[in-house]
Amino acid sequence: MEREELLRSLTVKNEKKILLVVLDGLGGIPNKEGKTELEVAYTPNLDRLTEESSCGLAIPVLPGITPGSGPAHMSLFGYDPVKYQIGRGILEALGLDMDVRPGDVAVRGNFATLRDGKIVDRRAGRIPTEKNRELIERISEKIREIEGVEIILKPGREHRFAMVLRGEGLSDRVSDADPQKEGLPPKPPRALTPEAEKTARVAEAFIQMVTELLKDEPRANTVLLRGFSSHPSLPPMQEVFKLNPVAIASYPMYRGLAKLVGMEVAETGEEISDEIETLKNSWEKYDFFYLHIKKTDSYGEDGNFEAKVKKIEEFDSYLPELLSLSPDVLVITGDHSTPSKLKSHSWHPVPFLLHSPYTFRDGLREFSEVACRRGSLGTFQAVDGMALMLANALKLKKFGA
Amino acid sequence: MEREELLRSLTVKNEKKILLVVLDGLGGIPNKEGKTELEVAYTPNLDRLTEESSCGLAIPVLPGITPGSGPAHMSLFGYDPVKYQIGRGILEALGLDMDVRPGDVAVRGNFATLRDGKIVDRRAGRIPTEKNRELIERISEKIREIEGVEIILKPGREHRFAMVLRGEGLSDRVSDADPQKEGLPPKPPRALTPEAEKTARVAEAFIQMVTELLKDEPRANTVLLRGFSSHPSLPPMQEVFKLNPVAIASYPMYRGLAKLVGMEVAETGEEISDEIETLKNSWEKYDFFYLHIKKTDSYGEDGNFEAKVKKIEEFDSYLPELLSLSPDVLVITGDHSTPSKLKSHSWHPVPFLLHSPYTFRDGLREFSEVACRRGSLGTFQAVDGMALMLANALKLKKFGA
Repeated sequence: MEREELLRSLTVKNEKKILLVVLDGLGGIPNKEGKTELEVAYTPNLDRLTEESSCGLAIPVLPGITPGSGPAHMSLFGYDPVKYQIGRGILEALGLDMDVRPGDVAVRGNFATLRDGKIVDRRAGRIPTEKNRELIERISEKIREIEGVEIILKPGREHRFAMVLRGEGLSDRVSDADPQKEGLPPKPPRALTPEAEKTARVAEAFIQMVTELLKDEPRANTVLLRGFSSHPSLPPMQEVFKLNPVAIASYPMYRGLAKLVGMEVAETGEEISDEIETLKNSWEKYDFFYLHIKKTDSYGEDGNFEAKVKKIEEFDSYLPELLSLSPDVLVITGDHSTPSKLKSHSWHPVPFLLHSPYTFRDGLREFSEVACRRGSLGTFQAVDGMALMLANALKLKKFGA
Repeated sequence: MEREELLRSLTVKNEKKILLVVLDGLGGIPNKEGKTELEVAYTPNLDRLTEESSCGLAIPVLPGITPGSGPAHMSLFGYDPVKYQIGRGILEALGLDMDVRPGDVAVRGNFATLRDGKIVDRRAGRIPTEKNRELIERISEKIREIEGVEIILKPGREHRFAMVLRGEGLSDRVSDADPQKEGLPPKPPRALTPEAEKTARVAEAFIQMVTELLKDEPRANTVLLRGFSSHPSLPPMQEVFKLNPVAIASYPMYRGLAKLVGMEVAETGEEISDEIETLKNSWEKYDFFYLHIKKTDSYGEDGNFEAKVKKIEEFDSYLPELLSLSPDVLVITGDHSTPSKLKSHSWHPVPFLLHSPYTFRDGLREFSEVACRRGSLGTFQAVDGMALMLANALKLKKFGA
């Protein structure tokens, strides 16, 4: 029996409220002075809370594995990230705030330049986003459906867009329509299994129709399609964990990931203060709150140690407001590490703080990578965090008699 | 999707070099004075390195499981030791430096004494090794093949030898031809599945022919055969991890284990100094280096605490030479523990040190069982060590987007 099935059989509903705060890319590694962002940040509120909480380090997927946002969030939501993989097309569509439903196939698109039968620029000279919007509007007006399959498009930045195919009998087993290198002829999408033939035909027809439609465009006169992927059809949190969950996240991709596991998504603003306002307004209606703070990751990716420190400090200043809601269970963690030193996601385990009336008080003096490894939760798989939250909310029955 | 498949899909080649130093049987337990071999050893270089490395304790197979050299090494090489079991016949043949190939079946042999239709001495009075060599030479001359199966023999110490069967349609599902107790009649090898019938027939014919050939020998006048085992056919490290690995080990069994996972094997000498010379000479050609030091285990097995301490100290004195090669990732660990107090392998987790530009500096003051358990790597499965090495060498792509 796997973890998911076991939990499903043990979860019960009660009134207790769980607040999961995810500071994206929170973890770091030491800079030249030997300190991580968390160690440098002045976080008096977080440190006080740490002292009376249980702490540990959470491994997002497996030791050594660096996760993307998809797998990292699946773990925190209690879903095995290796079993439930979220395709690239789906992530792209979610990132553009598109509605993706079971049965849909999502694809990443690029505008490209075709000349004399060859792809001469895979990014169409990085056309301005404004131009992209205009083109997508033109295409959307002309191409609404192919073979009964609805074509839904949304522009991204520069040359990027996403497409959702909606209809009967679709499959994501379709190869990328992308020669990968410039100077080669276009590569048509191919069905990798017989069930995918319709999808490949629709994609190929789409490329043909767009190429005809945009033939007078100097740069963006064709499209490349990549990362065909199906909706992962995750069993909803309501069903597996008996929760009534809401997501408070300002970035589309995280709202999308939350929707995939059945969360409602609250309207909110860009700032931490907006998100906390939204949290307060939602407090009565739900029993599980996923609060996502993006900028810690963004600054890590930029290699901006100081800005990441400042963002952590800003979060710290709002912590008393979170505590004033008196969540029965409070978790503060990251989905993965984004050390400024690496300017990218990394494999390092992430500080994890769990506060409830039933945890040990580890007495640690600060919330950091080094301190948390001495915490009572030890080093554990992030996917087990959900069971710990549920247990501390007394939402799990005894297993066996 | 298992760990191996996941890693295979994420590994990429780059120029970075990984050095894995295995001090065989490194771990210990406290002696009467309450100290382990590592704690007693004076290791200023290792202690200095420990201070600026990430440390932890590696569980060779599972908590409480004492591994043989086969599973212990499989773990360190990144292969699930329970999935990929190396048979005793294979290990015996590797230990005698025999060439073993996919499709071969290897067997452990004993000379024994047959009298009045009964095995009266299962070890033929422990005949001298010189006598063993002479007998194996005689047998090898007379018995070159049976039913088209090539018979390859090599003498071991005293009454022991190994046999490799090479040919079509072999199987290792053959029972031991060994009555186990003295005073019983010989026990013929039996096929445990229909596919193994040819192998059992060949083995039985071999025993008959040898018994006829040696009928005038006073002691070694028959043979017992045990541990029939096939080549495990492991996917090579080149394929799974995209590494170009080399083994530097003076003992045949470890060279053989390394060959099983696709490593090249460098010629080297018996002493640590010889091995380090070989390492330096190989440095340009490879990107993964497995350096094996045997004697820590041998002295542990002898119960010679002091000699094990001295061997650790000797290694310490060579550490600056290793560091002067500037490996991008350096791991120093053991394959298992061999506490002098137990005079045998044991189940205790093994100190593990990982050094790279991307690890935490744990600041531990010495490299020992007690200190390492406070390290940032925590207590982990040794088989996960490979992913940690690859991650720190930036040889793993991000999982998911």
